[in-house]
Amino acid sequence: MSKGFLLVISGPSGAGKGTVCKKLLERNNKLVFSVSVTTRKPRPGEIDGVNYYFVDEKEFDQMVENGELLEHACVHGNYYGTPKKFVLDQIEKGEVVILEIDVQGAMQVKKSYPEAVFVFLLPPSMDELKNRIAKRGTETEEDIAIRFKNAFEELKFIDEYDYIVINDEVIRAVEKTEAIIAAEKLKVKRIKSILDKILN
Amino acid sequence: MSKGFLLVISGPSGAGKGTVCKKLLERNNKLVFSVSVTTRKPRPGEIDGVNYYFVDEKEFDQMVENGELLEHACVHGNYYGTPKKFVLDQIEKGEVVILEIDVQGAMQVKKSYPEAVFVFLLPPSMDELKNRIAKRGTETEEDIAIRFKNAFEELKFIDEYDYIVINDEVIRAVEKTEAIIAAEKLKVKRIKSILDKILN
Repeated sequence: MSKGFLLVISGPSGAGKGTVCKKLLERNNKLVFSVSVTTRKPRPGEIDGVNYYFVDEKEFDQMVENGELLEHACVHGNYYGTPKKFVLDQIEKGEVVILEIDVQGAMQVKKSYPEAVFVFLLPPSMDELKNRIAKRGTETEEDIAIRFKNAFEELKFIDEYDYIVINDEVIRAVEKTEAIIAAEKLKVKRIKSILDKILN
Repeated sequence: MSKGFLLVISGPSGAGKGTVCKKLLERNNKLVFSVSVTTRKPRPGEIDGVNYYFVDEKEFDQMVENGELLEHACVHGNYYGTPKKFVLDQIEKGEVVILEIDVQGAMQVKKSYPEAVFVFLLPPSMDELKNRIAKRGTETEEDIAIRFKNAFEELKFIDEYDYIVINDEVIRAVEKTEAIIAAEKLKVKRIKSILDKILN
């Protein structure tokens, strides 16, 4: 059996991370989605350990202090993080773990766990990115301008990534990501143990 | 447009390199097969620059001396080599070049052109490898024993490769190789120039 790995799917807002990851998981039920830890209160129906690991702020701080998180951030006053243990346990079992995350988060993961595979999801053009950000309709002109500026700044981090996937059509982006996963599973460093099997 | 690359498909004799490469090229007419240079006389129908570059020994020696070959070897008294220029020209044009070669040759390429992508093709088991070598029927018991021993020795070089593809079924091995090609095309180092296009 080959070793698993962490696939970080990242990119600027408007690149379509959520849509691509959703479709990717629909089509590949063996992929494991990384479960985050949060200080946010559970919503009705959310299950601890499935949707999130729910903790209080003291517990969260403790996890940060103990180096138990691959990355963490504060969003609208709530803390979110990626527990290292969950990811490493799944990898040990041979699973491919998907982490959908913004560029800042991905850069934290790159520091704490450089063995991960990093995919940068890109819109087909900056015009299209602007359209997508604007189409959400939930944001003011100013918010849109800020998001667009941020997206532009985030492109500078592309050298830290392994792969670029252009999200022109969701299905094409998903297929490309699937090829990346298939190829990464064949990396010598992950399946060298297979040699023992062949030699016996 | 993304930059091309050299995909070296290698492995012990009996791994099925020839069969896999043939099927791979049948299914992917955009792939370019590396054209070797040889001192062997052309056979009827063979075209210079298509099947091989035909040269005399003096020309061949000159190419070796000038560092114009990615690798070279002598087989049954004839010299064969992989011209660097052909490969680099194709890569510059954005093509994926396939080089089917034994492990010794691949190790030479690794030294002269480490940017290549190296695939180690493996039989599903050493028993199966023995069967495949024996089935050729063209060799004596002693030849078979030597080939088998060599194959065993060649496994030690697997760490020098990027990917392992088990050739249990040809079509599966071909699909895996196709996934490797698809993923390698998405590597940041090859398509960073695409950013310019998106930014404009």
